[in-house]
Amino acid sequence: MQSSLDLIRELATTSPTKIVLLVIDGLGGLPHSESGKTELETASTPNMDKLAFNGNCGLLQPVGAGITPGSAPGHLGLFGYDPLVYTIGRGVLEALGMDFDLKPGDIAARGNFCTLDASGLISDRRAGRISTEDSKRLSHLLDGIDIDGVKVIVQAVKEHRLIAVFRGEGLHEELSDADPQQLRVPPKEVAALKPVAEHTAKIVNQFLAEAKKRLTSHHPANMILLRGFSKRPNFPSMTDIYKLKAAAIASYPMYRGLAKAVGMDVLKTGSTLADELATLEKNYASYDFFFIHVKGADAAGEDGNFQRKVSVIEEVDRALPQLLALKPDVFILTGDHSTPATLAGHSWHPVPCLLHSRWCCPDRLTKFSESACRQGGLGQLAAVSLMPLAMAHGLKLTKFGA
Amino acid sequence: MQSSLDLIRELATTSPTKIVLLVIDGLGGLPHSESGKTELETASTPNMDKLAFNGNCGLLQPVGAGITPGSAPGHLGLFGYDPLVYTIGRGVLEALGMDFDLKPGDIAARGNFCTLDASGLISDRRAGRISTEDSKRLSHLLDGIDIDGVKVIVQAVKEHRLIAVFRGEGLHEELSDADPQQLRVPPKEVAALKPVAEHTAKIVNQFLAEAKKRLTSHHPANMILLRGFSKRPNFPSMTDIYKLKAAAIASYPMYRGLAKAVGMDVLKTGSTLADELATLEKNYASYDFFFIHVKGADAAGEDGNFQRKVSVIEEVDRALPQLLALKPDVFILTGDHSTPATLAGHSWHPVPCLLHSRWCCPDRLTKFSESACRQGGLGQLAAVSLMPLAMAHGLKLTKFGA
Repeated sequence: MQSSLDLIRELATTSPTKIVLLVIDGLGGLPHSESGKTELETASTPNMDKLAFNGNCGLLQPVGAGITPGSAPGHLGLFGYDPLVYTIGRGVLEALGMDFDLKPGDIAARGNFCTLDASGLISDRRAGRISTEDSKRLSHLLDGIDIDGVKVIVQAVKEHRLIAVFRGEGLHEELSDADPQQLRVPPKEVAALKPVAEHTAKIVNQFLAEAKKRLTSHHPANMILLRGFSKRPNFPSMTDIYKLKAAAIASYPMYRGLAKAVGMDVLKTGSTLADELATLEKNYASYDFFFIHVKGADAAGEDGNFQRKVSVIEEVDRALPQLLALKPDVFILTGDHSTPATLAGHSWHPVPCLLHSRWCCPDRLTKFSESACRQGGLGQLAAVSLMPLAMAHGLKLTKFGA
Repeated sequence: MQSSLDLIRELATTSPTKIVLLVIDGLGGLPHSESGKTELETASTPNMDKLAFNGNCGLLQPVGAGITPGSAPGHLGLFGYDPLVYTIGRGVLEALGMDFDLKPGDIAARGNFCTLDASGLISDRRAGRISTEDSKRLSHLLDGIDIDGVKVIVQAVKEHRLIAVFRGEGLHEELSDADPQQLRVPPKEVAALKPVAEHTAKIVNQFLAEAKKRLTSHHPANMILLRGFSKRPNFPSMTDIYKLKAAAIASYPMYRGLAKAVGMDVLKTGSTLADELATLEKNYASYDFFFIHVKGADAAGEDGNFQRKVSVIEEVDRALPQLLALKPDVFILTGDHSTPATLAGHSWHPVPCLLHSRWCCPDRLTKFSESACRQGGLGQLAAVSLMPLAMAHGLKLTKFGA
């Protein structure tokens, strides 16, 4: 049996219709202890509700029952890429999150500044959480080191965190971590997990030895720990699979990076929803698929701020008429995962999803909400099924079989 | 791609929460011809109904659409083990059902006493269904036979049925059946299905020849037929996969054996529900997962006794407050399969399931029943998805991907 992406690739065809996928990050929620209503149920959303009446609703399962997704698997599922098959290494994700321009062949690692005691054992894996400023200053000491023709680029992230990117010929990502993730042991030597990576391991270890020398007088940040060595993934592009000209409108680097990884054009945009919609309007004629990312709901949920999450949802609802004035043939509103304010973090709960097109057999639901979505026509749906549905409603999939 | 158990193993983490899985064997049913209500719909279940209001309900698919599960696949699915992958041989199942202490390397077979006619052809595969007493007496004639250092243990089961366990070095289970499952043919020689099992096949055939000699004067039980040669399975344990300290509270040997096969501690308990709950209370502090098995509903269903099945369900409902007083963080009530009294046997119908935790987005259903479960938030769910969900609700699964 071929993979489902192969099937879609075979059936995909171009058509003049346009698909807009609006992702409210962390949309799904849980009831407030007093009102018994979720964030989405609490929000006043007359425009979403109208779409729910005429369209189809359902609950998306991002990865699988009980699985809480990170941002990467959450989004890859929405783009139709099975998140258990299409994985992205930790180092690459951290680089994507910084808008770092990874080249093919680069090996990225995420890392920490740490503290070694007099015997060379790790006494603090985070070097006392040094400030971002200190981290930047110390990163400069390591940035640009050249080992046997391999250039090492080091950039501070936030506080004690950093990325290290190894750029050169013939590098391989099959490397063990240098970070033992425990105290009172020395940093580990990096080992090749496959023979082909032995040369790369040697280079990384030489770099780490040099880093130790250069940092020795900078206690508490007198060493670094690296982990998650990985290459930019080589995923088939959305153009290849869906024959779509796809654009991403997202202001956070992580989501821009994920969109880039599946071959979308990442449009220049401001960070507010108004900015993002202006970008959509400006580019509407040039693409047939748009992914728009709204970050605020997830951030509010992570902070446990129920009311702020409600406000973000209401802000999106107020902006909908402007978006819908463009008359997208297929409009989808969903999230990449749930982030209930009561849990103050990502969760495993399935995510409300709404699909609207003139080809929906309407659900006639009166509210877009978790509980209404349980009754909707999409049922409980794996996130990877969403793109084929969107394509179908855009009349972009030909018949399978005669 | 990794298997889903590998994924769960990777994400599982310990937490102080407790999960209780209460299995009413054969819970699912079909409407009574007069009332139009199923057993569960007929039963008065105020406590289950309250849980359904605040928790999530759904319908579990034990193996797949249309597949009627036996007890083993039914339970393995609930424990998160794909019953199509994790199979247990018939011989081993019969041994488990007798509480027989199978050692690693033992080969177990199930068998019948049968009748051979004067030409050595099978005239009755069940030897006229001889009494259990006769079966015990004749089993003694065969028990303890030694073939080339392999000891054969023979024990009567019920009526004409028996088990034979071959204990020795280097035995292999890849053997064809000796039972041709038809009349007017001779018993078959056992054949090795792989070259490695040839020595074992020879030993089994020598044993069968010796059994024929010893039984020759005991018409109608003048021979035995063996089938389902198998070894105790080597499944990963629930501790290995879920990092759970898991205990089983079940009085029937089959279910104790299945729990043992997935590495649960099997607690000493009496056979009534009150006994089982007393065992739960006594051991509650020592484990973080409990499987409690209630047999009566299945037995009533198998007997076609609709009203007795209703009574068993009501008995469980009355006992629920005692169980819930322990305040399990995650409480699950379901069955291993359906056993509709109208069918008087196991069936393929999906099984009502209820999950209750403080992290449920409540269904607000007013009754725990087959029809209500169709509207529940769990939707139609593969049984193997239940454990990941339970783990998630117990906050025992870390995030997948960054």
